[in-house]
Parts: sequence; structure tokens; C-alpha cells
Amino acid sequence: MDVRKSLQFLLIAGSFLGLCALLAEGRPSPQGAGEHGADREAIGAVLRAQQSAWNQADVDTFLQGYWHSPELTFSGSNGVARGWDGVLARYKKNYPDHAAMGQLNFSDLEFRFLGRDAALVLGKWHLQREKDELGGVFTLLWQRFPEGWKIIHDHTSTVAEKPH
Amino acid sequence: MDVRKSLQFLLIAGSFLGLCALLAEGRPSPQGAGEHGADREAIGAVLRAQQSAWNQADVDTFLQGYWHSPELTFSGSNGVARGWDGVLARYKKNYPDHAAMGQLNFSDLEFRFLGRDAALVLGKWHLQREKDELGGVFTLLWQRFPEGWKIIHDHTSTVAEKPH
Repeated sequence: MDVRKSLQFLLIAGSFLGLCALLAEGRPSPQGAGEHGADREAIGAVLRAQQSAWNQADVDTFLQGYWHSPELTFSGSNGVARGWDGVLARYKKNYPDHAAMGQLNFSDLEFRFLGRDAALVLGKWHLQREKDELGGVFTLLWQRFPEGWKIIHDHTSTVAEKPH
Repeated sequence: MDVRKSLQFLLIAGSFLGLCALLAEGRPSPQGAGEHGADREAIGAVLRAQQSAWNQADVDTFLQGYWHSPELTFSGSNGVARGWDGVLARYKKNYPDHAAMGQLNFSDLEFRFLGRDAALVLGKWHLQREKDELGGVFTLLWQRFPEGWKIIHDHTSTVAEKPH
């Protein structure tokens, strides 16, 4: 009888904990400071790797931060580019050489986690080129894959510089 | 003994099912046609209500589609507007009267669900005004709240019309 009661207790307690975990999981997490620290670090590392690749005029390595899928999307002032190949082609068309690419800097990152495997990241981009400079804001949607965090959607805008 | 075995079986099967549910939950869902049908309908209804409010020059009702929070963000060609009040002020500044607002149309909606309580929606917007027309693309991040689906981040761009 004791064993049966113990098993019943385990069954009920296990179901309750499972349900709690399930409810907690489905809900986007609040932006607590310590939460998702490892995920922020991992996403930040991908962005630093992208910046570094860009600044060596290496668009192919830059593209490694994106989901290698025909479902990848990139929205901007030319509409929507679709698929990894489409996004690569867009970058190569708009930034054909080292001079056009210039020096890229990302800043002001803001993270919002949506469950365990998705995150929204807002930030600013700035491009310093020999002849001009430009910059703006981006919205990146990230998804966790077995191989790590990847951008599954990018919406990037240019913001006109305010006169100094 | 039979009872104990049954309980053991239930415990193991229950834990297994709970684990499966947990794993399934944490993962953004594929874009199956029938999946999330009610959620698509609910989000579509919010967008139709926004369109209708806009076309009656009712910005306050239009804003009901957004999360009423200081954490709401709106990214665009002026950078990032913050908070419900900030987004309202941006709309009122850029679209001061009925003529500036014109007739709004949303189209080409694409849904991507991220777990149970978040969704990414891409689409196109078009504004027909007496003196001109303009349009572009938007990226909306939605979250499910007890009162329904709300936009928690909006990134909107203008796309230059291609010459006819």
C-alpha cells in the first residue's frame, strides 16, 4: 500500500510539474537581467562574427549568421528578398566590393526572448565608407537550431543622419 | 502487483508524453496550412479593424492593435519610437489629418508562429491619397495576451514604386 501511495504521489507531482513547465514554456519570458545570458552571448557572438566578416569584405561568411533555408526572408527598402540565395544575391548586388561595403558596426542591441527557441533582437547599424557614411536600424528574428542561433528574418532600414 | 505495474506504466508513459509536449512546445511550428487557423483569423481580424479605423481617420482605435505598454517598439525610417504613447505621437505627427492618412490597405500577409503565444507576420501596406500614393512592407511581432493578440514590435519600411 505504501508503494502504491508513493507511486500515486509521484504520478500526480510529476504531472503537475510537467504542466507547470509546459505553461511556463509557452509564454514569452520577461526581460530579466540574468535570464537567457548564454543565449544573449551566443547571439552576440554571431553578430560579432558577421561584423568581422563584413569588414574583411567576406559576404559569404557574413551570410553564415542567416538560416540556410529557402524560407529565410529579408525586408527592406526594396521589398522582400527570399531564401538564403536571394539574400546573398541582394547583398552582393548592393555591396559589390570592399569600398561599397566599408566598415560595419552594430550597436544598441536589445533582446526579447519568445519562449526558449526564438528571440527578437533590435539594434543599430552604421557603415563608414571612404566617400560617405550611412546607418539605420534593424529587427532580427532568431531561432535556435541544433547548430546554434540563426537569423530567420531580417528587416533593415536606413535612417537619415541628423545634421550635426 | 498488477496495480503497481499499471501505476509504473502510467508514470513512465505520462512523463514521456509530457516530455514530448514540452519539446514540441519550445520549437517554432512549421507553417502547416491548418495549424494555428484560429490564431491567423484572430490576428487578421485585428489588422482588418486597424485598416477600418485608419480609413475613418481614427488613429486612437487604430492603436488598439498595439500592446499598451511602455515596452512597445516601432522601427522605421526615423529610428525607433518607444512605448504606446510614443508610437501614437509618431502616427499623429506623420499623419496629422484625414488627407494625410488616405485609404490604407494591407495585403500579402505571411504568418510564422513561434511557439504558442508569439507570431511573426510579414505583409505589404499601401496608402492611396488624393495627391499621391505610397506603400511598402512591414514586419509585425505579435504576442498573445489574455485580452487577445497584440503587436509588440512593428518595423515598417516604404518601398519605392516601380515605374509602370
